[in-house]
Amino acid sequence: MKYELYYWPSIQGRGEYVRLALEEAEADYVDVARERGVSAMTRMMEEDTTPPFAPPFLKAGKLVIAQVANILAYFGPRHGLAPKADASRIWVHQLQLTITDFVVEVHDSHHPIASSLYYEDQKPEAKKRTRDFWDERVPKYLGYFEGLLGKSGDSWVTGRRLSYVDLSLFQIVEGLRYAFPKRMKAFERDIPKLCDLRDRVAARPRIAAYLASERRIPFNEDGIFRHYKELDG
Amino acid sequence: MKYELYYWPSIQGRGEYVRLALEEAEADYVDVARERGVSAMTRMMEEDTTPPFAPPFLKAGKLVIAQVANILAYFGPRHGLAPKADASRIWVHQLQLTITDFVVEVHDSHHPIASSLYYEDQKPEAKKRTRDFWDERVPKYLGYFEGLLGKSGDSWVTGRRLSYVDLSLFQIVEGLRYAFPKRMKAFERDIPKLCDLRDRVAARPRIAAYLASERRIPFNEDGIFRHYKELDG
Repeated sequence: MKYELYYWPSIQGRGEYVRLALEEAEADYVDVARERGVSAMTRMMEEDTTPPFAPPFLKAGKLVIAQVANILAYFGPRHGLAPKADASRIWVHQLQLTITDFVVEVHDSHHPIASSLYYEDQKPEAKKRTRDFWDERVPKYLGYFEGLLGKSGDSWVTGRRLSYVDLSLFQIVEGLRYAFPKRMKAFERDIPKLCDLRDRVAARPRIAAYLASERRIPFNEDGIFRHYKELDG
Repeated sequence: MKYELYYWPSIQGRGEYVRLALEEAEADYVDVARERGVSAMTRMMEEDTTPPFAPPFLKAGKLVIAQVANILAYFGPRHGLAPKADASRIWVHQLQLTITDFVVEVHDSHHPIASSLYYEDQKPEAKKRTRDFWDERVPKYLGYFEGLLGKSGDSWVTGRRLSYVDLSLFQIVEGLRYAFPKRMKAFERDIPKLCDLRDRVAARPRIAAYLASERRIPFNEDGIFRHYKELDG
């Protein structure tokens, strides 16, 4: 099946978690807005009888699936990126939903007041929120995943096989390194297993090829992970 | 099967979306922390090999399932609160995930800087965020669901049968009425179908019985929906 991914063409954003899965699975896909323009995406959002609330969404045959975790829950088991047994599928999905929650908090570290305002219009608030983000939230979320890696003794978070959750955790570590290089450097000593997982994901042949390709949009200050020097401690 | 719901005993919070589903399904369940104390909940979070990141979580036989939308995706099709066919299940789950996103934004309207701080320590920021919440976010989210109700022509958001999404939308309308009575009163003329859906959910015999019972915790200022007069326009 040829998949169609719909997401903003100029940022990694939430689309990146889906792109990483498509790439690792060597799936046949089009990144629609990048190849055919944003209007191809907005049209889909208006016409469909099950309209997505927001990008990203994936067209798979007649299905149009939105919400990153929902897309991955559909795509994963069909492409060896998630187990097929009920209990394991639910567990992997649960972890992805926890990552989803964290991604909102990453975004709100630079946009605590409103997505509709510029960062420049909420700088003092962003500074306060970022302080709490690093004091409380990053240790809580990443500590949780580090703990799971310690618990299982397996190579990957949910077992002996890589799942889409591992790909998403790669993106989390990568994104935090980009957005907060100083803070992250100091913090990494607390999450050695996650850093090692990040390296092992990056070294997988298909991921390495993707990262080196033009298909991967560089990090920038329109995405979820943004580098603002004054927020980096 | 006897279910065990684990959630904070003194608030509706995120647990309420699960409680409403359990009640409408007339499921056999224990609200563990309310009946046996919070320590019964925290113990579960430490011991389990698939530990939840946070409450609520549901014990169903050997399964321990966290994340509201994940719990409902498991529970719904087993109790007539969601369709069983793949495409429909994915759609209903997608809508619940959109509600999940909205619930974060409801919470952050009074806590835009940090969950770890008191509301009193972030009042000016809460005022700013609440303004954007009502100018941009409420119309966007509730307008989306109102539009779906208009589109389908069916009684319920996802078709002719009630799903857990309808129960959650009842809670959203109910919660916004509690937290922002003035603002909501003015806004309700834009969402007549959602208000009608709210009434029809409230009138269902099992939901009506639940709402009148002591099992339902009243809204209060420790939950997600909080009434602070100064934020109500």
